[in-house]
Amino acid sequence: MKHRLLILLSVLGATTLCAQENDSVVIRRIVEFALTRSSCYEILRGLTECCPHRLSGSDGADRAVNYMRDVMLQMGFDSVWLQPCYVPYWVRGEKEQCTLFYNGRQEALAVMALGNSAGTGSLGLEAPVIEVKNFRHLDSLGKKHINGKIVFYNYPFQDAFINQFQAYADAVAYRWAGASRAARYGAVAVLVRSMTSARDNHPHTGSMAYNDSFPRIPALALSTLAADRLSDVLRRHPQARLYIRNTSRMMADSVLSYNVIGELRGTVYPDRFILVGGHLDAWDAGHGAHDDGAGCVQTIEVLNTFKKLNLRPRHTLRVVLFMNEENGLRGALTYAAEARRKNEIHVFALESDAGGFVPRGFRIGGDSILIDKIFSWKKLFEPYYVHVWNRGGSGGADIAPLRGHCPVLAGFLPDSQRYFNHHHADTDTFDQVNKRELELGAGVITALVYLVDKYF
Amino acid sequence: MKHRLLILLSVLGATTLCAQENDSVVIRRIVEFALTRSSCYEILRGLTECCPHRLSGSDGADRAVNYMRDVMLQMGFDSVWLQPCYVPYWVRGEKEQCTLFYNGRQEALAVMALGNSAGTGSLGLEAPVIEVKNFRHLDSLGKKHINGKIVFYNYPFQDAFINQFQAYADAVAYRWAGASRAARYGAVAVLVRSMTSARDNHPHTGSMAYNDSFPRIPALALSTLAADRLSDVLRRHPQARLYIRNTSRMMADSVLSYNVIGELRGTVYPDRFILVGGHLDAWDAGHGAHDDGAGCVQTIEVLNTFKKLNLRPRHTLRVVLFMNEENGLRGALTYAAEARRKNEIHVFALESDAGGFVPRGFRIGGDSILIDKIFSWKKLFEPYYVHVWNRGGSGGADIAPLRGHCPVLAGFLPDSQRYFNHHHADTDTFDQVNKRELELGAGVITALVYLVDKYF
Repeated sequence: MKHRLLILLSVLGATTLCAQENDSVVIRRIVEFALTRSSCYEILRGLTECCPHRLSGSDGADRAVNYMRDVMLQMGFDSVWLQPCYVPYWVRGEKEQCTLFYNGRQEALAVMALGNSAGTGSLGLEAPVIEVKNFRHLDSLGKKHINGKIVFYNYPFQDAFINQFQAYADAVAYRWAGASRAARYGAVAVLVRSMTSARDNHPHTGSMAYNDSFPRIPALALSTLAADRLSDVLRRHPQARLYIRNTSRMMADSVLSYNVIGELRGTVYPDRFILVGGHLDAWDAGHGAHDDGAGCVQTIEVLNTFKKLNLRPRHTLRVVLFMNEENGLRGALTYAAEARRKNEIHVFALESDAGGFVPRGFRIGGDSILIDKIFSWKKLFEPYYVHVWNRGGSGGADIAPLRGHCPVLAGFLPDSQRYFNHHHADTDTFDQVNKRELELGAGVITALVYLVDKYF
Repeated sequence: MKHRLLILLSVLGATTLCAQENDSVVIRRIVEFALTRSSCYEILRGLTECCPHRLSGSDGADRAVNYMRDVMLQMGFDSVWLQPCYVPYWVRGEKEQCTLFYNGRQEALAVMALGNSAGTGSLGLEAPVIEVKNFRHLDSLGKKHINGKIVFYNYPFQDAFINQFQAYADAVAYRWAGASRAARYGAVAVLVRSMTSARDNHPHTGSMAYNDSFPRIPALALSTLAADRLSDVLRRHPQARLYIRNTSRMMADSVLSYNVIGELRGTVYPDRFILVGGHLDAWDAGHGAHDDGAGCVQTIEVLNTFKKLNLRPRHTLRVVLFMNEENGLRGALTYAAEARRKNEIHVFALESDAGGFVPRGFRIGGDSILIDKIFSWKKLFEPYYVHVWNRGGSGGADIAPLRGHCPVLAGFLPDSQRYFNHHHADTDTFDQVNKRELELGAGVITALVYLVDKYF
């Protein structure tokens, strides 16, 4: 009996090994396709040229919807459609101004309104400014020192974190919640140090939100060099004053827009979905090349690769380009609500929204047995320098609303070192994306989807 | 007895675990220092500004020697000195020309002489051109079709290799040996497709050598776009002719130059050396930022980090900035000969000469027991996304001559995807180096040296 069990185990082992050998051959073909024949780099060039500014509700976002739908149609996906969703429409208005007055002198500082920020009115506002290290410092200063002033949050992006997303998570509360926290003490506006390790003159925008218990004061980002300069001047001239002007405003809360969706029909389980995607909207500062044009073109390329290599998927593969990730998540919420309403069975969802940099791995949350299964494939990815397999999380902002509906939510992890040099800044442009890095990402995402489709 | 053995083993295990915990704390300090307080990025800025062109024998190379010696002196190393070596001195001469004539038209093609190439003479030369796919193709054409012509090697850099150094190894013979292989059949000059995946108009130079059985014909690199264009025109107009002109020449075979060397004296084994280094010379096309300014500043930073963190090394740490890696290796040969002559005991040598990109790992050759010891430290490097530990090789061109004298030769492996976009081209400039990627490299190299110093 023991003997037969051993034989059985060794046969099973051999089968597994053989399957892995087979899989490694197919994965090699997939990644070679990505590096030699994929179109994702040229599609990203087209997207960033056709619609560099595509914040939700804007004409650029409309153009992007049409552009990407046409790309999917030209690729010959089995079905391509637009899923309506209603998005906020915020506009930046005229170019922002920030002028520092001290000791009879004046200096312009590089600044950009945060997304969703109220404006100063067309006359702008002038006030003394107080530098604040962190929220604890703000609270200790209180109304007495804050009232009537512009609060300058100079919390640094922590260079000591190895993964730059941890530095972002550490700092982003000042951008997101800083305005209302300061308005509570009577601040008239806030300036936030940009969330980046780079020392340069490019401000980084990004979402903020108001707590409606307090006045909606303007909130702007300073470039890191401007923040250093302001801090330096304040140390020597605490009476320095700032003039700021921004005419940004929320135009409407509910403008019709769309998620763009394409599918390859499953040959065995046409009613079970494997979802891949990124978000199509982008901040108006740069061209949304890394955030998240890269994720869009990589996940379209997953379906394109299956089609071109004639890898007929067992499940239906669906790519979703979500609208409004940056300032509302309305596309993601609409998609998840519809998926639930229609009882669409999702077996796996993956988002690529961390830039088009060289692949490092995946972060996978959800059902632990399924995650273990995925982790058993690690070896197959080593030839592609994919070594990081983290457990947990919900894959990405756009697929997180599928939690509870989809058993596995995965996020693609490219290298993080350069991402925040470009994130939400005017340097997030096509020329900052390396063709091979982008393509390798598309390749390894497709390889993972191939295995999920085969073994789930 | 068995019981006591178990206790002993578990105590040893605990000691190992405890040591690894301790080591992980020190390594964390080392990498944090690299990311927050290291000076390697600013030193690289200074080097590339002070002496962007520093090919062996040039004034720029002399300036670089002085600059880096001064850096080491300012860092307060225990000793800093110049090791004389005699290097070849090749000059590019005037800007090269390459003009394509076909069908009554003419077009300029982007071109650059290969290092060590002879010139055409000041009048240049004009001849018909024949495209050759590879050496087999060349041999099949033979004298009948080659004689009197310019041979155009259009062998592509293979995009399907994941590691770009493999694509380089695959293609580089056309650059290195193509001239004499073609001269054998009567070719009057050769043009070589640049060794890069990038499709752009930047030619990539690099070393070539002559076989003195055949005439020394000029050898130049075409940009990839120029190569594509020439190939396209030749397909339609096989009678097309090329005019090329380069005035490059070897000025002298033996000019005095130097390796730049700095040391921190060992506290336990002052007469045993751990060597780290890169090469100080660089092609004249770009500024040698990645190749190999990055390796120079990273390995200087190893000693600087020990000093600033007061990690007193047991062995003597020696950084060597080798002269003439690019076109002669004379600095490396001199260093190895002197090390042998003086019977200097080298226990470990590491070279960083693959660009200042994000770290991936190390390639380590030599004594297998020592390599096993090093590989037992892998886990300590995972928090820094260092996962690749390859066995074999001789670390790098500059330390390879130490083989047989030094038991372990290691090469630092940064990510390879972007390297050949810049390698030996005018785009190898400081702005293409990312600060954090460079610093992380310095940090993980220092961490490895720390462990070697502690456990060897």
